[in-house]
Amino acid sequence: MVFLASCDLQTKNQEKAASLSDPLPSWNEGTSKQSVVDFVEVTTDTASEFFIPKNERIVVFDNDGTLWSEQPVYFQFIFIMDRVRQLAPEHPEWKETQPFKAALEGDMDGVIKSGAGALLTLTIVSHTGMNSDEFEQIVKDWIKTARHPQTGKLLKEMVYQPMLEVLDYLRANGFKTYIVSGGGIDFMRPWTEEIYGIPPEQVIGSTLKSQFEIVEGVPEILKMPEMEYFNDKEAKPLSINKFIGRRPVAAFGNSDGDLNMLQWTAAGEGKRLMVYIHHNDSVREWAYDRDSNIGRLNKGLDEALDKEWVIVDMKEDWKKIFPE
Amino acid sequence: MVFLASCDLQTKNQEKAASLSDPLPSWNEGTSKQSVVDFVEVTTDTASEFFIPKNERIVVFDNDGTLWSEQPVYFQFIFIMDRVRQLAPEHPEWKETQPFKAALEGDMDGVIKSGAGALLTLTIVSHTGMNSDEFEQIVKDWIKTARHPQTGKLLKEMVYQPMLEVLDYLRANGFKTYIVSGGGIDFMRPWTEEIYGIPPEQVIGSTLKSQFEIVEGVPEILKMPEMEYFNDKEAKPLSINKFIGRRPVAAFGNSDGDLNMLQWTAAGEGKRLMVYIHHNDSVREWAYDRDSNIGRLNKGLDEALDKEWVIVDMKEDWKKIFPE
Repeated sequence: MVFLASCDLQTKNQEKAASLSDPLPSWNEGTSKQSVVDFVEVTTDTASEFFIPKNERIVVFDNDGTLWSEQPVYFQFIFIMDRVRQLAPEHPEWKETQPFKAALEGDMDGVIKSGAGALLTLTIVSHTGMNSDEFEQIVKDWIKTARHPQTGKLLKEMVYQPMLEVLDYLRANGFKTYIVSGGGIDFMRPWTEEIYGIPPEQVIGSTLKSQFEIVEGVPEILKMPEMEYFNDKEAKPLSINKFIGRRPVAAFGNSDGDLNMLQWTAAGEGKRLMVYIHHNDSVREWAYDRDSNIGRLNKGLDEALDKEWVIVDMKEDWKKIFPE
Repeated sequence: MVFLASCDLQTKNQEKAASLSDPLPSWNEGTSKQSVVDFVEVTTDTASEFFIPKNERIVVFDNDGTLWSEQPVYFQFIFIMDRVRQLAPEHPEWKETQPFKAALEGDMDGVIKSGAGALLTLTIVSHTGMNSDEFEQIVKDWIKTARHPQTGKLLKEMVYQPMLEVLDYLRANGFKTYIVSGGGIDFMRPWTEEIYGIPPEQVIGSTLKSQFEIVEGVPEILKMPEMEYFNDKEAKPLSINKFIGRRPVAAFGNSDGDLNMLQWTAAGEGKRLMVYIHHNDSVREWAYDRDSNIGRLNKGLDEALDKEWVIVDMKEDWKKIFPE
């Protein structure tokens, strides 16, 4: 009994301390920050009409452009280019064949201009032909040193500090944080736990087909050269329903590809939080929206304005973009 | 500091109490019980060479025949029959058309003899034509009162008490428990949290296709009349890899359909636990293995014997089968 009383008191004191300190120090005061804080406070307060039980506190985040940068190309594309270069010695014919030639010359624009088919070809050669354990190790090794072609920063350091704080803040309040990305599920899982604190089982993304085989008595999962599921647009609420089986109570995205996920979240009963990250800071990051080929935010921006979802103004709302 | 010290002491005392009391009271002493306890103790002891960090403690369970009964037919089949009866007034032609006629007459053997195509037809009419929220409610209402045709028990009470204890014991020691079943994912999720303490996001199963639509401004996920993924045999390790992205450290099954999942688990590094539930109690439950149409355990039994996996002898190892 004595122990229990002390323990309760300790917990209460910790909670009090947590609520007194600023959980989002990299956010300037304003409606964006206040909307996030209000949502958490009202949904975790048992006395509130908007209280959400802990097991229903599911929050989904897009990855590219929402948790880390996505310009001038999705970072997975940098992985693809690096991997094609790495594999090139085994394929001398690539020097004369597109889209490999452009990839080997580092001509990103050339590859992108070759179209979706070319991109799929490069994705397949760079992501398949090995088993799942081997691919995991390839990505783990790559992310340690991969750098951005323009900033020179490590890619894993081009994550948004204000969003890392949102992830921590939500988890500290009993929310379960998920990634729901168009990026490859096997490309993200090797590093999301270290970088975002999101374990592999809470990462949903696009998939290539795979095959189970017993090779010399050892079971393996082989990564096969065929697209299985492209997790974008309406595929996002569908994969949320399949993988999680609960409707999220909050959703964060940055592009039209996230719109259906935000709509699906918004249509749930009770208090909901829908947030669009608006890339409008050309000095500290990039500025793009309605006309961008990557991370286009056009229909989504209209709907967010119309429905009064939170639109994060990166330039005004965020004290800093990246961690120190 | 005082609070912290008391709290640590309290935690220590609780842990000590937990380890002194029997975590598996419905299990008779013997090698099966001891194998489970040894596995948990050695993998959660930081001083052990077999210690497994908490985030890697993933355990997978088959459902039918592993967590609840599956005779004389999978319980989902009882749902299908009930639902066909419920829908019959809207389909007068079913009275004269197979496999509906057999289903309406309660002729389970007749339906099963009509083959896999007939079963799929009945699955589709009973599981589709509504949105995901509506189907969830249908299953929730059904499971409350659905009874077994032979025992007269509520189906939700035909779960194995010794396995409920294993689930609790593993979770109390930081393991994350998953269902990986051939049963329908949307059929299981509405009740697994209440009955097994397993939340929807930790339930993996077979899926029908679904479609995202905005109907009069409201986004819906519609359940479509087409099979998408049948989660049996090699599909189990593949879905584990897709949904969880980590290899399990322990796996429980009861049929050949679980063999690939157990093999995949066994092939991981470090200490692993593979368990087959062997149905050999014709008095308190059912006795079946190598020749059964439902839950056949033939190849799996050979491999379990060969590799010295745990084979639970339901008759000898379990003090009771169902909760009181």
